[in-house]
Amino acid sequence: MEQKRIYMDYSATTPVKKEVLDAMMPYLTDYFGNASSFHSFGREAKNALDKAREQVANLIGAKPNEIYFTSGGTESDNWAIKGVAFANKDKGNHIITSKIEHHAILHTCEYLEKHHGFEVTYLDVDSEGKIDLKQLEDAIKDTTILISIMFANNEIGTIQPIKEIGEIAKKHNIVFHTDAVQAAGNINIDVKELDVNLMSMSSHKIYGPKGIGALYVKNGTKLHAHSHGGAQERKRRGGTENLPSIVGYGKAAEIAKSHMSEHIERLTRLRDELINGILDKVPYTKVNGSLEDRLPGNANLRFEFIEGESIILMLDMLGIAVSTGSACASGSLDPSHVLMSIGLLHEEAHGSIRFSIGDFTTQEDIDYVIEKLPGVIERLRSMSPLYNNLVKGK
Amino acid sequence: MEQKRIYMDYSATTPVKKEVLDAMMPYLTDYFGNASSFHSFGREAKNALDKAREQVANLIGAKPNEIYFTSGGTESDNWAIKGVAFANKDKGNHIITSKIEHHAILHTCEYLEKHHGFEVTYLDVDSEGKIDLKQLEDAIKDTTILISIMFANNEIGTIQPIKEIGEIAKKHNIVFHTDAVQAAGNINIDVKELDVNLMSMSSHKIYGPKGIGALYVKNGTKLHAHSHGGAQERKRRGGTENLPSIVGYGKAAEIAKSHMSEHIERLTRLRDELINGILDKVPYTKVNGSLEDRLPGNANLRFEFIEGESIILMLDMLGIAVSTGSACASGSLDPSHVLMSIGLLHEEAHGSIRFSIGDFTTQEDIDYVIEKLPGVIERLRSMSPLYNNLVKGK
Ligand SMILES: Cc1ncc(COP(=O)(O)O)c(C=O)c1O
Ligand SMILES: Cc1ncc(COP(=O)(O)O)c(C=O)c1O
Repeated sequence: MEQKRIYMDYSATTPVKKEVLDAMMPYLTDYFGNASSFHSFGREAKNALDKAREQVANLIGAKPNEIYFTSGGTESDNWAIKGVAFANKDKGNHIITSKIEHHAILHTCEYLEKHHGFEVTYLDVDSEGKIDLKQLEDAIKDTTILISIMFANNEIGTIQPIKEIGEIAKKHNIVFHTDAVQAAGNINIDVKELDVNLMSMSSHKIYGPKGIGALYVKNGTKLHAHSHGGAQERKRRGGTENLPSIVGYGKAAEIAKSHMSEHIERLTRLRDELINGILDKVPYTKVNGSLEDRLPGNANLRFEFIEGESIILMLDMLGIAVSTGSACASGSLDPSHVLMSIGLLHEEAHGSIRFSIGDFTTQEDIDYVIEKLPGVIERLRSMSPLYNNLVKGK
Repeated sequence: MEQKRIYMDYSATTPVKKEVLDAMMPYLTDYFGNASSFHSFGREAKNALDKAREQVANLIGAKPNEIYFTSGGTESDNWAIKGVAFANKDKGNHIITSKIEHHAILHTCEYLEKHHGFEVTYLDVDSEGKIDLKQLEDAIKDTTILISIMFANNEIGTIQPIKEIGEIAKKHNIVFHTDAVQAAGNINIDVKELDVNLMSMSSHKIYGPKGIGALYVKNGTKLHAHSHGGAQERKRRGGTENLPSIVGYGKAAEIAKSHMSEHIERLTRLRDELINGILDKVPYTKVNGSLEDRLPGNANLRFEFIEGESIILMLDMLGIAVSTGSACASGSLDPSHVLMSIGLLHEEAHGSIRFSIGDFTTQEDIDYVIEKLPGVIERLRSMSPLYNNLVKGK
């Protein structure tokens, strides 16, 4: 009998959709030219590059010439933060971000503090993971050159008030960057309605290939390059264009755009079923993050008295793939900085699990997890001295 | 009748070999997991990552833990230069490189000069494109923290005396980086025999996919990260691992390693036939670069009295794809900085063409080009006032 395999780690990465791979294949075989070459092989590539740029621009309501392809979300984040910081050194050295950003933002900010003389304010978030707009405005100084607040959090799915943050940034004439790696393609975004100067995006979170992403740069935004080199990307990002992946990302963006309402509706329904099913069947369990302003595919739950790592291992043996949060932080024994920032205790953070679902998640998958999870949790709790003392002993 | 298509622009980019694509496909479909995830999807990816790292390490005689995957040659170059510069700011601010480096090196150095207080010496090269070892040693100061000299030039194919340069760097206790994007996989390299600290490589020059490369970092080399973020690549390069491309690059490296002598021998023979065939049939033509220390697949020729761009266009109409030099500089009207540095006049640089051949180049391709080229050159010269005055008028 084949082992059932259920993937609920879409926030870590998604499979590539068949239409996306189909779009890529010609560029992995026949049309292999360098998009910057003059000859026919180059022209074929160049045309595909232009089309993909339009598709990605269209996903977020941008102009094609505001889209710069990068190697992924991490590069986009590094580019935005360092690019603005270094380009505005003469204006000031103060950056505002939040405590629950992805490490691509936090570690970049810490690096700028430690080695390049910048000063960073890390805003608190409330129990749902939202920043306080008043606190943001209070943190602004004469030397503030950049505000970077993520669109949606990768662990708990909380969506920030991006429109309001943008208005504050604009009022104070400060560049505003948002890390939309989890958001762009999963929820509706129109940069024309937001005062956003820079936005990071990644393909492998929306059924496109890995190793490709984009930075939206609103025309007129002062920014140093992150990777200097050839004249690619209108001289702002060197490197031979990764055409097959760019074409795949373009296709993924097009599909995301055209299926957006269906995608949101379906995932929200399945996710709520999953959350409610688990809450119903498993006592001492709570939802982390906001119930309203939340990514459609994100469910993050904490199971008291036990360790998330053990839950993952046991679910893995049942063929169910989930995670404790950020894949990139794996290997570390520290509790999630996001969960600590929303006020969880160490042991609560350690007992949290992210179920992230996506377009290939089925009703049966949801039912199976709701069926299997209670037994797993019960078994682990039965081995937990804490649980036996506090709950069973009562 | 189908148009013949002959690709002689392998230095710009290569097609992906079938075995490489076959190796990638499972990771573009079934094994899509995030290599940093704990569950079974993650473990499948992690194993493939380890294997690819070994394959790339093996290509250059390195240890697997000295290989860091990047998005390509440009990122590797930026990382090496900025990473060493920023990590050694307290030691000194002087960098030595050459005038014929790729723009990924030159523009990065210029950026550091303009915005970060570094000072850069750009060494001259001789008529073959080689630096002078004495000049290099004379350029070293107390404040010199980095020497970066390319392994082989992308336009004229000249191979530098890397062993000797490394010895000088070592003697003076200076970090040595080499851009081996054109070399690694096309000629024999064993870092154990070279005093190299850092080496940039790229996959799409050796029949692997685009958008992936590596930086060799000799253990113990002080280096800041270029892309901060998650714990990937032993915490030195953040970003979800681009597994399909990494696996493809690994396979390409393995093939390159195992076919190296055959590859070198075959390309050298075909290239010499091409060069000699053209020199035989086309008057007022010269070879740019060294005839001995040259990449096997590189032929760079200058055709007096005419423009390279016109040659490219006419050859393109005959289905032959060649280039004037660097694809990344296309769109610019300036003559090649490499050709100017080896002492060519403006018009000589403008009349130069790079034919770069590779593993799919056939004897027929060579014969066809030798057959067709003389007519093209003659036709263009017949329209050149310069030629008519100077040569025909004689
Ligand atoms: C010598 C050299 N260095 C760096 C690069 C940049 O590599 P990539 O296009 O992979 O970014 C190239 C190729 O374009 C090159 O030939
Ligand atoms: C919010 C957020 N930012 C940045 C990243 C980094 O993106 P990538 O893995 O494409 O480099 C991720 C995903 O890992 C993310 O979830």
